[in-house]
Amino acid sequence: MYNFINIFLKIRDSKIFTAVVVTIILASALYAGAATYDIPPQYIGILNVFDYGITIFFLIEITIRLLAERPFYNFFRNGWNIFDFLIVSISLIPLGGTETVFIARLLRIVRMLRIITIIPDFRKIIDSLITMLPKIASIVVLMIIFFYIWATIGSLLFNEIDPDRWGNVGSAMLVLLQMITYDDWGAIMRDVMEVYPIAWIYFVSFLILNALILFNMIIGIVVDVMAREYNKD
Amino acid sequence: MYNFINIFLKIRDSKIFTAVVVTIILASALYAGAATYDIPPQYIGILNVFDYGITIFFLIEITIRLLAERPFYNFFRNGWNIFDFLIVSISLIPLGGTETVFIARLLRIVRMLRIITIIPDFRKIIDSLITMLPKIASIVVLMIIFFYIWATIGSLLFNEIDPDRWGNVGSAMLVLLQMITYDDWGAIMRDVMEVYPIAWIYFVSFLILNALILFNMIIGIVVDVMAREYNKD
Amino acid sequence: MYNFINIFLKIRDSKIFTAVVVTIILASALYAGAATYDIPPQYIGILNVFDYGITIFFLIEITIRLLAERPFYNFFRNGWNIFDFLIVSISLIPLGGTETVFIARLLRIVRMLRIITIIPDFRKIIDSLITMLPKIASIVVLMIIFFYIWATIGSLLFNEIDPDRWGNVGSAMLVLLQMITYDDWGAIMRDVMEVYPIAWIYFVSFLILNALILFNMIIGIVVDVMAREYNKD
Amino acid sequence: MYNFINIFLKIRDSKIFTAVVVTIILASALYAGAATYDIPPQYIGILNVFDYGITIFFLIEITIRLLAERPFYNFFRNGWNIFDFLIVSISLIPLGGTETVFIARLLRIVRMLRIITIIPDFRKIIDSLITMLPKIASIVVLMIIFFYIWATIGSLLFNEIDPDRWGNVGSAMLVLLQMITYDDWGAIMRDVMEVYPIAWIYFVSFLILNALILFNMIIGIVVDVMAREYNKD
Repeated sequence: MYNFINIFLKIRDSKIFTAVVVTIILASALYAGAATYDIPPQYIGILNVFDYGITIFFLIEITIRLLAERPFYNFFRNGWNIFDFLIVSISLIPLGGTETVFIARLLRIVRMLRIITIIPDFRKIIDSLITMLPKIASIVVLMIIFFYIWATIGSLLFNEIDPDRWGNVGSAMLVLLQMITYDDWGAIMRDVMEVYPIAWIYFVSFLILNALILFNMIIGIVVDVMAREYNKD
Repeated sequence: MYNFINIFLKIRDSKIFTAVVVTIILASALYAGAATYDIPPQYIGILNVFDYGITIFFLIEITIRLLAERPFYNFFRNGWNIFDFLIVSISLIPLGGTETVFIARLLRIVRMLRIITIIPDFRKIIDSLITMLPKIASIVVLMIIFFYIWATIGSLLFNEIDPDRWGNVGSAMLVLLQMITYDDWGAIMRDVMEVYPIAWIYFVSFLILNALILFNMIIGIVVDVMAREYNKD
Repeated sequence: MYNFINIFLKIRDSKIFTAVVVTIILASALYAGAATYDIPPQYIGILNVFDYGITIFFLIEITIRLLAERPFYNFFRNGWNIFDFLIVSISLIPLGGTETVFIARLLRIVRMLRIITIIPDFRKIIDSLITMLPKIASIVVLMIIFFYIWATIGSLLFNEIDPDRWGNVGSAMLVLLQMITYDDWGAIMRDVMEVYPIAWIYFVSFLILNALILFNMIIGIVVDVMAREYNKD
Repeated sequence: MYNFINIFLKIRDSKIFTAVVVTIILASALYAGAATYDIPPQYIGILNVFDYGITIFFLIEITIRLLAERPFYNFFRNGWNIFDFLIVSISLIPLGGTETVFIARLLRIVRMLRIITIIPDFRKIIDSLITMLPKIASIVVLMIIFFYIWATIGSLLFNEIDPDRWGNVGSAMLVLLQMITYDDWGAIMRDVMEVYPIAWIYFVSFLILNALILFNMIIGIVVDVMAREYNKD
């Protein structure tokens, strides 16, 4: 039995195993992409066989990795393993009815996320993203509040002029998100200014405040990262 | 009497008090947001009662904080307290007539700004924004002058071609603000170039000068912040 | 005689003199801006008198500063003084005929640039901009060459599809400038892709190369400025 | 014979030779640009002679540089030389038939790239770009995967609503590229939201994830470059 686990460990850590898994995931991804083009019906059977093959391969692969852990439940101590397990489990659920095709396709794409768990470089990038989040949390919450206040005011003021955009606070928040990316904000402002010529104050103050907050945040993070790097040396 | 003030001090500094205030402000905010959607008339009565409740709560809360200060006028030595006091005072003014609903709603939203004064992290971000302002003041004034000169020239040159945009110096400044965010500037330029094919000089020189000034400003601030951080160590 | 020059020197260096000059320039600027709005004819006479007043004041002011220099031609050793002298000289040229009003207005605006020469903070910003130029010169020249090559290729390929944009190399360079600001580039690309579906290669490669060059340039300048700051300490 | 090579070496390293080559390349470039404007037929003969002249000059120039190397095949050890050799070789291929004019023109433009190999400053910029590539390679691959996943989902969801944009995974990737430059993304989102009001989740999550990844990448590179600069000192 012990020997058996040892074999699984060797398989899991071999470069060939990793290379095979990456190849299969990429093939699965290309297949998911190809499926968005029009495919002649005679190929659909082949694609379905290929699809089953990938599902079975993934099942075997995760079983190997699960059995490679000494007490097998140690496998679930790693967040990435849980992520892998969930993706594989979901793709095993038998589907039926009209929505089958759609959900099957979505699963095929989500399966591609597994490439992140396989290649260490990608895992590192995602990990560094996650460690960045708490640092920007308070400023993000402040920005959401700031957006919410401005959106409520905008919805209150411009509700009747342009109900498509300013009809309710949710819609107005989307418009403000569009505004901080400077996408077409001139047109949004001008539509309102035709009724209230003074409305530019609302838009310009929003843009300037936002630029200040974002700039302040970026400077803060850059200085913070630099200081940590400097102290390491 | 002294004992009495002590109780207020304890209330003010307790975590439960802060948590209650934050909850009430957030509830007030959600309510202000919800009011932008269509609400069935039978709920309006409930919302009004809720609104009165928040106003009274805020009045009690600020009274507690005011009484917690030993000579009570010390309360007004802190800019944030004055800010709080003004918001609560304004929301107590009795309203009547046709504009009541509008102003009452606006007050409800402005009240949400009080969340900044309650949570220290937010107060720190705003404080750091305010300390950044004098550093960028001279460059901002220079940019306003630069905008004004370019806008006056633009208004002088393109007045008759595109009066909606270049009709007067105020309107032209808004167009130039739109241009430095690169929003639809190609279309603005092309509209003018149909009459004066040479007009691209005006737009391209504006964009390049602006990019240089902004880039110079950002580099200056980054270096300045870094140097200060470095000297702290 | 010597005493006389001394008086001019005292006037030039007095804070009151600077304040008066700044006030006059700002008044002149506000007047130039106001002239872009429709002005009732009865005010035009007053504005003209005001205009003459400013011209005469500027003449007196520059004469004082010129006489304040010991050998008066030392005045022209400073680039900013030459700049001032040119602006005042040009506004003294008597104008006649139909284009008078236009040129007179343009001069009034250009006069406003004098505020940069008066306030030392502004002069410093402009000086730092000028010192930045040689550092970015080689990369700017490279970008112009890069633009030129891509514009010629674009003009060659898309000439017949969209002659308004790609008709000649000059027009194509303007389109590419619009593209690096990401303004409406999706629409520009799609117009061409309707004929050549493969044309996205041209646009995407241009955007990516540009992003790389600009990013490289910015990093280079930031590191350079930092290193200089660091060595100063 | 040895003496002969020495002459070529002297020619190659002389400043006059470089200046002549740069002048010829720039003339060739101006000519390629001029050819995008309408040229009266009588000038075409002159331009063709000029074109032949440049081709012959480039042939002579590369022969000189090839002969200047002691064992002549050392010439091909430098990537830039190979680049030069290829450009000159291709422009020597005799052309015939209907596509001649087009290809001849394209070659003329590509020839302009040789200015990079002549001027050391440009070569340095390109070299520093190339050394930057491996550092951003893993994040670029991650972004391509991220794009691919999102594009496949988008194509799956919005295929029938807006087939022009979301018809297949290739087209959807172009739309997403347009989105990360914030070009007209509000309109793209709104077109889809008319059918699925919940679709904003797809777009907003894409934008926020992208902003995080790009920001993380930029910070990483800045810190890396700084640390290297710091260690050099």
